[in-house]
Amino acid sequence: MQLSISEGEYKSRIEKVRKVLQRRNLDALYLTNATSIFYLTGYSFISTERPAALIIPLDGKITFIGPELERDHAPIKTRLIEDVKTYLDYPGEKHPIERFAEFLTEMGLAKKRIGIDNKAGASAMWGYKGPPITRRLPEAKFVDMADLVPKMRLIKSPAEIALIKESAKWANLAVSLLQEYTTEGAWDVEVALAASLDTSSIMKKTLGEGFEPLRNIFPVSAGFRGQIGEMSAIPHAIGTRRKIKSGDVIIAEAGVEIGGYSCELERTMIVGKPSAKQKRYFEAMVKAQEAAIQKIKDGVECSEVDKASINAFKKAGLIHLAKHHTGHGLGLEGHEPPWLDIGNKEKLRAGMVVSCEPGIYEVGFAGFRHSDTVLVTKDGCELITYYPRDIEQLTIT
Amino acid sequence: MQLSISEGEYKSRIEKVRKVLQRRNLDALYLTNATSIFYLTGYSFISTERPAALIIPLDGKITFIGPELERDHAPIKTRLIEDVKTYLDYPGEKHPIERFAEFLTEMGLAKKRIGIDNKAGASAMWGYKGPPITRRLPEAKFVDMADLVPKMRLIKSPAEIALIKESAKWANLAVSLLQEYTTEGAWDVEVALAASLDTSSIMKKTLGEGFEPLRNIFPVSAGFRGQIGEMSAIPHAIGTRRKIKSGDVIIAEAGVEIGGYSCELERTMIVGKPSAKQKRYFEAMVKAQEAAIQKIKDGVECSEVDKASINAFKKAGLIHLAKHHTGHGLGLEGHEPPWLDIGNKEKLRAGMVVSCEPGIYEVGFAGFRHSDTVLVTKDGCELITYYPRDIEQLTIT
Repeated sequence: MQLSISEGEYKSRIEKVRKVLQRRNLDALYLTNATSIFYLTGYSFISTERPAALIIPLDGKITFIGPELERDHAPIKTRLIEDVKTYLDYPGEKHPIERFAEFLTEMGLAKKRIGIDNKAGASAMWGYKGPPITRRLPEAKFVDMADLVPKMRLIKSPAEIALIKESAKWANLAVSLLQEYTTEGAWDVEVALAASLDTSSIMKKTLGEGFEPLRNIFPVSAGFRGQIGEMSAIPHAIGTRRKIKSGDVIIAEAGVEIGGYSCELERTMIVGKPSAKQKRYFEAMVKAQEAAIQKIKDGVECSEVDKASINAFKKAGLIHLAKHHTGHGLGLEGHEPPWLDIGNKEKLRAGMVVSCEPGIYEVGFAGFRHSDTVLVTKDGCELITYYPRDIEQLTIT
Repeated sequence: MQLSISEGEYKSRIEKVRKVLQRRNLDALYLTNATSIFYLTGYSFISTERPAALIIPLDGKITFIGPELERDHAPIKTRLIEDVKTYLDYPGEKHPIERFAEFLTEMGLAKKRIGIDNKAGASAMWGYKGPPITRRLPEAKFVDMADLVPKMRLIKSPAEIALIKESAKWANLAVSLLQEYTTEGAWDVEVALAASLDTSSIMKKTLGEGFEPLRNIFPVSAGFRGQIGEMSAIPHAIGTRRKIKSGDVIIAEAGVEIGGYSCELERTMIVGKPSAKQKRYFEAMVKAQEAAIQKIKDGVECSEVDKASINAFKKAGLIHLAKHHTGHGLGLEGHEPPWLDIGNKEKLRAGMVVSCEPGIYEVGFAGFRHSDTVLVTKDGCELITYYPRDIEQLTIT
């Protein structure tokens, strides 16, 4: 099992970028988005207030420009970055953007046509301030290319799909441990950390010494994110004060990073014997998810998938409890296009990977949502995650 | 022990904002920054591609505008948000920014003067696309107020300082567990998760059922972030493949969220008997940190603190191994102003809280950095973190 994208595939991604540069008559691409930089090189860094960018000239060395503390990091992680140019720190005696302008000038780009994903020239985080790079290189012509890499990411390659499938195996283990460790009186944070720890240990033993997450400090992110009992009615809850008790609906979820990629797996579980109302809501949610999955296929409009789950909830008389659309693309980011949303006219294409997760939420009662990772195929779709979905197997007694 | 900022203090922050609005002749403030929104209301949400903002009118209801899935979340977390207006989802049949323009119109702000922290009107994450709000409300006058809340955050109140001190107690426990659990042959990820789990459990037992993190899923973030052996020479390493072995320099760190706030605590440790070279680098780092701490005082220029550690490294003949400045402000974000940087002429003020963490890094060998959280006072400073700093107590045998 290959646990990361091969150097050859990274190279072919860069070749694609250079073909676009040529076609658009651009001399270089200037990328500030850390996910885009990882997608093209396999190099990941911690984004902070310190500006950083990747410069891909049409001809010439692929160059990372960033803080001195990243100088020795990039060459350890990739051979595709051929040069590293750094400033000591931010804000510095000279502002980093001034140094970036100098670096681009050294690279012969000061009067060239440069595609850029963000005209500031830096991702603005944590109190960063600075003039846009466009103002510091007035003779260069900057062209908005924010869409280039995100568009390349839409259709997953066989290698990317293999990594997401490997991720799904381990997410499956993590969710099974969450279910196993959940008991009345437990604090969900403890259950979550214990399941994350044990899944990580088993992964290291199984995948071997060479296994490491590339973009996250921890490979496994398993837990409930506060979705316990009445707080399960808040889809983006963060925490819950109280401990788990009998009668709670809980939503367990896991993501696992393999070579930068992750699946998404979420399961609604019931602690103790489900009530009639819990059963009714649970079954409506499962049916809505099935209806949406049935729709997923190459060539189908994204809105159609959302419509399928909306109709299922309408049929169950529970549409007033829906609070979000059916799903989103995934792979490198928590959410990414395409959006399975009633307003999205884009068509699904074979090789896209999406979450399918219609949910219903009643304040003061509970929330119900399974999320599965689904690969779009020519003939329909393939479920990448495979944890049981039925209420019998998701009842904790 | 109060574990969060009181409603009264949030109210007084909003009052300060309204005074500025009045002085600047503005009718409302439009905030997209999630940290700013938390700072003013105590409400935290997960930032995604879905636009969200807080509107503080000079007169009128404080209103959260965002996705439907946050509708019931805000009222649970704060009483200061008086109204919530939502769109179903992104991208939606009507783009959320169009809805935001309608919401502002309903609030009577369509032709008013609005301070804003981001003229897009939305934080652009994860593939979000949309027109700027400024274009959708052409008759409104938008005024850049990006600095307003970050400036308010610079000087910490007694309540904020108390939360950071409480955080330091628990970070101290977490780092002591990291040290205790570190053994030859251990994988740093397992040590990190075990220390995070045990610290979390002890916190819940001690602080009581009511304890919960407000902004993070897990209250404790303890570990090494890949800074093991030769990878400790990469200040922002993410992971290390191999397990811990005798002779390794490792850098342990912990942050713990209390009421949204965290300290920063990092310690360089040596596994096994330190070599002469390890001792020399370690002692030089400790001296540089002491020199910087000596300088910290109300009225001192930030650059002076950086200069002190630079001079200490120069004296030790190791300045060529420095890769970053001396420190940064902290509290609500990983890094925040003021920057303890040679290029920063701003003056420290009593009540500011900064990290003090000069470091040296030799590729192929190791990195050496302690980080402490320091409160600036009228007469000097107070160390908020207090884990031992000397090599004897940081040697793991």
